[in-house]
Amino acid sequence: MRRTSATVKEPRPRAQPNPTSPSERLFATRQHSLALAAPLTPEDMVVQAMDDASPTKWHLAHVTWFFENFVLKPHLDGYRDFDDAFNYCFNSYYEALGPRHPRPKRGLLTRPSAERVFAYRAHVDDALRSLLSSEKGQSTEVTRLIEIGINHEQQHQELLLTDILALFATNPLKPSYQSSPFEVDLSQPEPLRWIDYAGGIHRVGHASDEYCWDNELPPHDALVHPFRLADRLVTNAEWLEFIADGGYATATLWLADGWTAVNREDWRAPLYWEKTDAGWFQMSLQGLLPVAPAEPVAHVSYYEADAFARWSGKRLPTEFEWETAALASGARHESIETGRLRPRRAASGEMDRPKQLFGDTWQWTSSAYLPYPGYRPPAGAIGEYNGKFMISQQVLRGASYATPGGHSRPTYRNFFYPHQRWQFVGLRLASEID
Amino acid sequence: MRRTSATVKEPRPRAQPNPTSPSERLFATRQHSLALAAPLTPEDMVVQAMDDASPTKWHLAHVTWFFENFVLKPHLDGYRDFDDAFNYCFNSYYEALGPRHPRPKRGLLTRPSAERVFAYRAHVDDALRSLLSSEKGQSTEVTRLIEIGINHEQQHQELLLTDILALFATNPLKPSYQSSPFEVDLSQPEPLRWIDYAGGIHRVGHASDEYCWDNELPPHDALVHPFRLADRLVTNAEWLEFIADGGYATATLWLADGWTAVNREDWRAPLYWEKTDAGWFQMSLQGLLPVAPAEPVAHVSYYEADAFARWSGKRLPTEFEWETAALASGARHESIETGRLRPRRAASGEMDRPKQLFGDTWQWTSSAYLPYPGYRPPAGAIGEYNGKFMISQQVLRGASYATPGGHSRPTYRNFFYPHQRWQFVGLRLASEID
Amino acid sequence: MRRTSATVKEPRPRAQPNPTSPSERLFATRQHSLALAAPLTPEDMVVQAMDDASPTKWHLAHVTWFFENFVLKPHLDGYRDFDDAFNYCFNSYYEALGPRHPRPKRGLLTRPSAERVFAYRAHVDDALRSLLSSEKGQSTEVTRLIEIGINHEQQHQELLLTDILALFATNPLKPSYQSSPFEVDLSQPEPLRWIDYAGGIHRVGHASDEYCWDNELPPHDALVHPFRLADRLVTNAEWLEFIADGGYATATLWLADGWTAVNREDWRAPLYWEKTDAGWFQMSLQGLLPVAPAEPVAHVSYYEADAFARWSGKRLPTEFEWETAALASGARHESIETGRLRPRRAASGEMDRPKQLFGDTWQWTSSAYLPYPGYRPPAGAIGEYNGKFMISQQVLRGASYATPGGHSRPTYRNFFYPHQRWQFVGLRLASEID
Amino acid sequence: MRRTSATVKEPRPRAQPNPTSPSERLFATRQHSLALAAPLTPEDMVVQAMDDASPTKWHLAHVTWFFENFVLKPHLDGYRDFDDAFNYCFNSYYEALGPRHPRPKRGLLTRPSAERVFAYRAHVDDALRSLLSSEKGQSTEVTRLIEIGINHEQQHQELLLTDILALFATNPLKPSYQSSPFEVDLSQPEPLRWIDYAGGIHRVGHASDEYCWDNELPPHDALVHPFRLADRLVTNAEWLEFIADGGYATATLWLADGWTAVNREDWRAPLYWEKTDAGWFQMSLQGLLPVAPAEPVAHVSYYEADAFARWSGKRLPTEFEWETAALASGARHESIETGRLRPRRAASGEMDRPKQLFGDTWQWTSSAYLPYPGYRPPAGAIGEYNGKFMISQQVLRGASYATPGGHSRPTYRNFFYPHQRWQFVGLRLASEID
Repeated sequence: MRRTSATVKEPRPRAQPNPTSPSERLFATRQHSLALAAPLTPEDMVVQAMDDASPTKWHLAHVTWFFENFVLKPHLDGYRDFDDAFNYCFNSYYEALGPRHPRPKRGLLTRPSAERVFAYRAHVDDALRSLLSSEKGQSTEVTRLIEIGINHEQQHQELLLTDILALFATNPLKPSYQSSPFEVDLSQPEPLRWIDYAGGIHRVGHASDEYCWDNELPPHDALVHPFRLADRLVTNAEWLEFIADGGYATATLWLADGWTAVNREDWRAPLYWEKTDAGWFQMSLQGLLPVAPAEPVAHVSYYEADAFARWSGKRLPTEFEWETAALASGARHESIETGRLRPRRAASGEMDRPKQLFGDTWQWTSSAYLPYPGYRPPAGAIGEYNGKFMISQQVLRGASYATPGGHSRPTYRNFFYPHQRWQFVGLRLASEID
Repeated sequence: MRRTSATVKEPRPRAQPNPTSPSERLFATRQHSLALAAPLTPEDMVVQAMDDASPTKWHLAHVTWFFENFVLKPHLDGYRDFDDAFNYCFNSYYEALGPRHPRPKRGLLTRPSAERVFAYRAHVDDALRSLLSSEKGQSTEVTRLIEIGINHEQQHQELLLTDILALFATNPLKPSYQSSPFEVDLSQPEPLRWIDYAGGIHRVGHASDEYCWDNELPPHDALVHPFRLADRLVTNAEWLEFIADGGYATATLWLADGWTAVNREDWRAPLYWEKTDAGWFQMSLQGLLPVAPAEPVAHVSYYEADAFARWSGKRLPTEFEWETAALASGARHESIETGRLRPRRAASGEMDRPKQLFGDTWQWTSSAYLPYPGYRPPAGAIGEYNGKFMISQQVLRGASYATPGGHSRPTYRNFFYPHQRWQFVGLRLASEID
Repeated sequence: MRRTSATVKEPRPRAQPNPTSPSERLFATRQHSLALAAPLTPEDMVVQAMDDASPTKWHLAHVTWFFENFVLKPHLDGYRDFDDAFNYCFNSYYEALGPRHPRPKRGLLTRPSAERVFAYRAHVDDALRSLLSSEKGQSTEVTRLIEIGINHEQQHQELLLTDILALFATNPLKPSYQSSPFEVDLSQPEPLRWIDYAGGIHRVGHASDEYCWDNELPPHDALVHPFRLADRLVTNAEWLEFIADGGYATATLWLADGWTAVNREDWRAPLYWEKTDAGWFQMSLQGLLPVAPAEPVAHVSYYEADAFARWSGKRLPTEFEWETAALASGARHESIETGRLRPRRAASGEMDRPKQLFGDTWQWTSSAYLPYPGYRPPAGAIGEYNGKFMISQQVLRGASYATPGGHSRPTYRNFFYPHQRWQFVGLRLASEID
Repeated sequence: MRRTSATVKEPRPRAQPNPTSPSERLFATRQHSLALAAPLTPEDMVVQAMDDASPTKWHLAHVTWFFENFVLKPHLDGYRDFDDAFNYCFNSYYEALGPRHPRPKRGLLTRPSAERVFAYRAHVDDALRSLLSSEKGQSTEVTRLIEIGINHEQQHQELLLTDILALFATNPLKPSYQSSPFEVDLSQPEPLRWIDYAGGIHRVGHASDEYCWDNELPPHDALVHPFRLADRLVTNAEWLEFIADGGYATATLWLADGWTAVNREDWRAPLYWEKTDAGWFQMSLQGLLPVAPAEPVAHVSYYEADAFARWSGKRLPTEFEWETAALASGARHESIETGRLRPRRAASGEMDRPKQLFGDTWQWTSSAYLPYPGYRPPAGAIGEYNGKFMISQQVLRGASYATPGGHSRPTYRNFFYPHQRWQFVGLRLASEID
């Protein structure tokens, strides 16, 4: 890819490398899940905010079940299930692995208790340690499955935070997940600038030896038309303009399904926004705080993102526009380790590459979530991980402030239905080149 | 009332009297609620099994809110709310007392924590103690309101158990509320006998000085036609015959709305029954146990009770048939103090009065829940307690094994919608006299 | 019954007697159904306004099916079905007579055509003529069944008009069923007066040899407490006051289920009312016309009637209060023959008996629709006519302007669910005697 | 495009050209709509089979409204609306043209009558004739709008047949739209063969001067990977194998949303199939007939098509694979003029190009319905025609036996939601080249 208006000078420095051995990374990941649950009470951990969300306890148990079923049962001789009932309780959606507790009822599982789930985790961790210290634990297959398990648990780490925010937002007491709120920066955002890209045939999809998901494969050629990309995310200040200009009341800005959703759900602002006498507030992991103008807007559906883009006279980027721009930028932000669970305002000053690619909000693209040419799901139950969801959803690119390290790469594909807004999702504008 | 086939010889002995001073009874009641919650974890206490049910924590807080709003705020000088947000969280349905958290979302309230709700209870108990030790606390009005509050809390004690069973029944681990299960008595029930009543003009409704609810008032004359009443409740053994005879598959046995419910909900047995390779089991407060033939059937809807009666060639009693028979029997069982949270088989031997009137299951009557002639709800918010529910529900009489002492009297009116089955509800047959 | 404040002087004259022989009455009834359909196009006849309503064509075919199945098949030797498929198409709810087309899909039956349904009617009429001219046609059983069939068809004549109004009310063109609208009388109503009744033991239910439905049986004693009854129906003028006083916005006036309905359905006025720049209008069989102050209010649910009564400081009468007052009055209005399909204002002047008992609107009572003591449904499929609906509905008494002759009697019991408003239903107030 | 296994020898002959002047084509189209309605009664024309479908009368009126609003009002001086109320009644979804009758209630419009809608059509036809005979009627803009109106009406001609089949399929009498059913050919299908395509950069989208929809624009380059395409559609015989092999009961064959739909809707076969004692039958425009093995399967959802492809070890083609293969084949079938409203079996014999591209069933592709690069909807209300539906739907290519002439071209994009099955939709398999 050649960018017409700017040249990449140097890649941004990579974040500090994670622990290097698989085993170290495994147990660091396992430990991090517990750290994320630490601010929560057992009550917080059991409740399910809505059908789309899952309880913290369920997340903690399910990722453990995943190791048990995909790693320990097939590969650790003599492994004994911690509890026979857990396969039913904590299988998420693997049809090949038998019947399971209905998703919308995950929040009814007051038993097993959080304490027992912690014991389950310890039991599985011990077994994983045994396996990894054995010869069999060094096999390519085990290494591959451990790696999948780590990445799987990391995805649930982000969902855990997403779902806790959904839960706390329903609570009249408006609790904070992070106890000491940040000072809210109420200054205005940086001006938006455009970066031009020439297009052409590009290699997309994941090609290196590093870990990736099956939905990033196979790498293949894609034809990208010349395009222009915003150097930063859309801000709350810009979203307030959209609201003030009647964005939520103007049918012609919206996809038909979007307009139906606006009216059915009575959407008047992003999810978690509340209008008070003191202006707009937003529920966040730090509690209910004033909307910060320079922060990227978050918790908008695809419908809203698309309507905003139309109102702006622009559009959303395709996933391959985004990917080629990200590749060219060299950016790879490792976010959650910073501990700041909140998107940041864009850095000041003009740059010749896009800001905020990773670590602030996921970014809706105009691409449907479909298999790549020649895509084949992996054999066995693990083949249900991604492939069976490839319909009716839209691709998101980037990573949010809640995304664990190791999940910020140009080829990464996240996906949600166009009406969903509870994820940490925002948008970046694109357009044709005039 | 004159019974044609038998004479009442002596009233059954009343249960041991409760603590006698209002204050003693108040704090005994308050303490008993905590005792009921003792077997539960904080996780068990926060979750809502379904829209009709409420979480234990919510019950514990709501009854406290009731004292705070109806007793302390109007009558204790200088009383300060424990937490301003709690009025919103724990108002149940009192329109006159402001907006409230939506009923189906009570289970989302992970905060305030159980611990904080216990502190709330202690705070209100302290204030009640202050009030009761003051002169104002001796006033008729305060005494009346304390009495209402006690009875209100007791009703929620039964609901707490009802709702915990609903919650545990959804759990694949089938937890027990009472940890050491009873031996299940698998012997056959006593034969059913009939008692005839002559009918006539009877005084119904509550007429003594003892406590009653407004829906038991005013006492008034009612014309009761001659009738025949079963001496015991319908048993599980009889219900198994109904099932075996195709009761759930025979449209002409059912009310039209009932038949719709059977097909929509796919009812094939009472709620909490499960057919296994080892026969029928039933989820109970003691866990999943075999269906005991001689125990009264429980957890049936009005539709099922009515269909069973039609299948039997009988009918359900009216509420005044039940009341006059109960009055004549002198029975008044005080159940929950026994600590046996399970209905008992009917006592052996022929008696000249009905068995199992109180303390096993509530009993559906064929009477709609409507106001008595001249009924007026009390003034103020307390007037919303009963009156506004007087439509589309059926009256139940008696008391269940989970009903606290003081709620077992011939005039007591319980009420549920005809499709509801999660209460401890069974039935007793009646008929015309040939 | 003795009325304390007035004496009955003479019964109102009965309407002109209907044709006297069963056969004459049968074919006059059959002809009248066709006359009611005459103003309609085939398109009007096929469409179903909502699940509760049925298409005109369906009504015309179903009443014919009723004669075919209950009279001709069992009693006319050699009778051949007009069309085998019609049993499936036109059985309403008789479980004993086999499967049937789902009720909410009656409006999809574009075939058989209206023309073919008319042919069906002629075929069945011919067969009925054969039967009635035979010896077997003179039997008591056939006579009884013919009588049931006549009364059944007459009930559907009223429903036909009810359902056509529901259909036309959804139409943006606001068509009139009666082409030349009445002058709307915009003058004010007569003042309301009260009539006192002493109460006592009364014989209620149907006791004469004339035709009645099984739900009016058996006649039996009922205890009626002293009461006071309004001499006329509640008017539109009074309803406008209720609206102006915030009746639809005051939670404490409503039953809990009613308040839920108000908010869910956004009720702000009776069904078919529309607020325009020129004031309140009401869709009627004569089209969209101004609300006439002196006319009885119509198309209100039980919830609304009950809330209005509470707002008035009064209540609705019980069904036996209404029945005993009607019996005492001697009134028996035969309405539809007048051809005026609209309620009338109450007659001027003070009378010693209630006005508007029959022929204006049905009147909600506070009584649940339940079986009378000793009630037994008739044997066979006909037993499904009334009995299986005896739950969750309220009794209405009187008759509307659309009720055919022969259905206006003091013992007649109509019934609807408390949320239903599409019938020609209003209310009359009652109260205790101070 | 180069096909590796075969060479195109000659394009198939084009169908007989349609009338050539715009005016001739306009009135031939207008006339054809009436011809399609001719077999229907007014009752058939008014009813709406389901929310997705529209009544025939509504189709006939709406296409007329389209000409009135987009052509006559802006361009014919002094044009007077036929009826002011019709804008409300017959606007489909144009937010820019004001409020409209709710889509799910189109079937309630018994008025205006079919007769009046015919008069409306005549009125608008007369006005169109006036306009076209005037100087203004020769303008580029009017010519363009007339062309859009013709194509719009033709699309509704197909929908009219789709919706009539949906209606007749709900009818227990199983009426035929075409009165004399075809002989059903019960012989076996032709063997399936594969054609290979080399891929490369292809020009896709519509580039000629002929009419096209905005969603076919702009023409642009697309990169197509080498692929293999089935020479004919999937047949009923093959679908019966899928059923027999447990296709509808094997979770792992399905997309997750598809599996949910299978279970929620209890799908066991394509829409309109019924299993009888005599085997599988299928409701069609010729009535209920045996499933013909060699005919293409029709009325399957995207979910079913995708599951079938997975079961076959193949996949569905992308829209550009289909388009480039169709372009290379030269096929352009003009179907409906043949009058055979039923898909045909594939022609016998091996060919070097795909059969059944146009004129049998629409064909699901694996491409989401999204805007082409640089797509801009036309200005004004007409811009709502296609663009606002570009989310959550899948592209279909080809044309069905019910598609009017002029709508069968390689670039044509049809679109439906993945759960929809009431259209004349089937599938063709594709795969990678090994």
